[in-house]
Amino acid sequence: MAFQKPPGTQDVLPGSVETWQFVEKTARELCRRYHFREIRTPIFEMTELFKRGVGETTDIVEKEMYTFEDRGGRSMTLRPEGTAGAVRSYVENKLYGDPDLSKLYYIGPMFRYERAQAGRYRQFHQFGVEAIGSDNPALDAEVIALGYNFYKELGLKGVTVEINSVGTPEVRAAFRSKLLEFLTPMKDSLCKDCQSRMERNPLRVLDCKVDQDKFADAPSILDSLDEACETHFATVRACLDAMDIPYRINSRLVRGLDYYTHTAFEYKAQGIGAIDTVGGGGRYNGLVADIGGDDRPGVGLGIGLERTLMLLESQGVKPDNGSPVDVFFITLGDRAAREAAGIVQRLRSAGLAVEQDFQGRKTKSLFKAAERAGATYVAILGDDELDRGEIALKHLASQEQRQVKLDELESAVRGS
Amino acid sequence: MAFQKPPGTQDVLPGSVETWQFVEKTARELCRRYHFREIRTPIFEMTELFKRGVGETTDIVEKEMYTFEDRGGRSMTLRPEGTAGAVRSYVENKLYGDPDLSKLYYIGPMFRYERAQAGRYRQFHQFGVEAIGSDNPALDAEVIALGYNFYKELGLKGVTVEINSVGTPEVRAAFRSKLLEFLTPMKDSLCKDCQSRMERNPLRVLDCKVDQDKFADAPSILDSLDEACETHFATVRACLDAMDIPYRINSRLVRGLDYYTHTAFEYKAQGIGAIDTVGGGGRYNGLVADIGGDDRPGVGLGIGLERTLMLLESQGVKPDNGSPVDVFFITLGDRAAREAAGIVQRLRSAGLAVEQDFQGRKTKSLFKAAERAGATYVAILGDDELDRGEIALKHLASQEQRQVKLDELESAVRGS
Repeated sequence: MAFQKPPGTQDVLPGSVETWQFVEKTARELCRRYHFREIRTPIFEMTELFKRGVGETTDIVEKEMYTFEDRGGRSMTLRPEGTAGAVRSYVENKLYGDPDLSKLYYIGPMFRYERAQAGRYRQFHQFGVEAIGSDNPALDAEVIALGYNFYKELGLKGVTVEINSVGTPEVRAAFRSKLLEFLTPMKDSLCKDCQSRMERNPLRVLDCKVDQDKFADAPSILDSLDEACETHFATVRACLDAMDIPYRINSRLVRGLDYYTHTAFEYKAQGIGAIDTVGGGGRYNGLVADIGGDDRPGVGLGIGLERTLMLLESQGVKPDNGSPVDVFFITLGDRAAREAAGIVQRLRSAGLAVEQDFQGRKTKSLFKAAERAGATYVAILGDDELDRGEIALKHLASQEQRQVKLDELESAVRGS
Repeated sequence: MAFQKPPGTQDVLPGSVETWQFVEKTARELCRRYHFREIRTPIFEMTELFKRGVGETTDIVEKEMYTFEDRGGRSMTLRPEGTAGAVRSYVENKLYGDPDLSKLYYIGPMFRYERAQAGRYRQFHQFGVEAIGSDNPALDAEVIALGYNFYKELGLKGVTVEINSVGTPEVRAAFRSKLLEFLTPMKDSLCKDCQSRMERNPLRVLDCKVDQDKFADAPSILDSLDEACETHFATVRACLDAMDIPYRINSRLVRGLDYYTHTAFEYKAQGIGAIDTVGGGGRYNGLVADIGGDDRPGVGLGIGLERTLMLLESQGVKPDNGSPVDVFFITLGDRAAREAAGIVQRLRSAGLAVEQDFQGRKTKSLFKAAERAGATYVAILGDDELDRGEIALKHLASQEQRQVKLDELESAVRGS
């Protein structure tokens, strides 16, 4: 009987894991430059947290959560997104008592029971940041810039930024009425999704791909903003301009989560099929209080790593990992085999990547194995060489071979 | 209403996450030197996999698994250990078709519903390696050495290696009878755990801390080894000797998992309370076939990261992360504030870690914030300086301040 991975999950194997490592390293390095620091929250949380933090009427909470009872009878849910857990942790650990902002980032698995399709997994991975403790619009711009630069540092081209203001809850309530006035007469002509969204979250109707043509004359939320919202949005744009971050204003951009206020933004890209949003985020000024903390404003982003990898693949961007093996070690003879363990151990302690054979293969097939491993050198130790305190060192790319003293092996390898 | 993390889980926050990063970086770097490559398998697997791979009668499978039904009615379990998933992935992805060994490592969360106590978490984290495809005892030694060097590279002292041979299933069956002959007369005097273990896995009885004194004359499995087992074990020891890895033979060492054959080993350490085993592993020659693959021998290890962190803490080992912030940027005046965004953006693009203020704090409290952030420099930009194309740069440790040209700011910071 053979076992299979659960539907909607992936095995990441050597050969492709290096791209994941490159993406994560880039995210971490960028966060270092922006002084965001890592937070790690549990893989599962109390189910109630996501109902409160993500929103009871969202698709995520209604249809997509992995919810289970633990052996103590508590309802737990595998985290479907990263913000609720980060904010829960911010509140529970009283980070709001810190005189500085909390600038946090996370990288890790999330879980949604979605219909399987290209680029969508039930276990997927996100890189996200949360900046909590200030309502300064320059902070929104900082977060938007960080995400933009993430794609840029990876070497991706054509990723664009779209921004919008979704205002305050009051602004949104007024706009919602205006929008329903516009939509209600055409309700019967709209697609099923739109009709159901009209009841639950009419702002998302304008985002519909099917009915797009019918909305040319729809009211824009940007015309409904009050003065404070307008000033906030104008300052975000001015900061992006000062940083030379190109963006497009998209007044129909609303995210799938209920908690955004003021700024909402998305990163868009071509070339990965139907999915053109590769990441996004926004400001969430009410969320910390919703989750039971003091009322602190925040802004964050989430970037899907599977989609980022699809973009890298479609643009042919490959990480340069250098040579994975410095020395492939081959022994000839029993005495040499016994001595090899100690020599290999010393080379590794000195920081070199060393591979050897455990399968008793012949020298010829070991040279092929050394090439497969991407080795820079093959070192050959025979009993004769051992008597002279020497070893043969062959540079694979140039095929040059020379004898070096055993105690100069490390420097010979490094000197290349 | 405030939410709390689930019982038995942890939030890892800035200030302690750096130690986790240091431990993981050390593990990854060591795997690079040994040419082990990363594999990532899903957080949950079909429940049946763990029943088969870990063993139906183990504590893990009987009492500790987080098992749930997904929305498709399949029984899934959060992985309680890393080997079953890695071997499932090896088989499903036909890695056995590769002419080279599969030398794999993983780092990630595991889940067991255990009684909460110091150093035990329900979501815990393991670093593990699996080398599949060879029964060469030198490979056992390679894996044991990798684990030993992991603790050494972290700067930990006093971690010792214990090794044993648990033979083949045939050898174990014969020893089991011999052992039961010895144990049965004293059964009533043994602790409850021992009595229950006598039925299920008598070899583990000898490991009991309570009844230790009674087993002085117990038979040793090392006297029951056949010739092939003896040769294998002798070669493992000879390889460890050649690598200068110190070890102690402990004939009572058996691991909690059913699948080990030949070599079993543990790393022990003092100073973290009752728990003295910090990691371990062994050879598992039957496991790949059990999980439905071709019959391939393997050997692996698993190291608990929570326990590793406790050891680092108890020995006062702290990672040196250097200065987390190169420049803390302060602006005086409106024009300077507007220009700052672009300057900060350029410094970060050049690779520097730059922090700034979003809370409108006064200069004096910003200097304190810069110190809390561990900044090397504070850069102060006023409108006057801007006119002259200059900026004030203060080195916090020496308190020396000088004016530098704006376009020389990066090199001034790097030149220190």
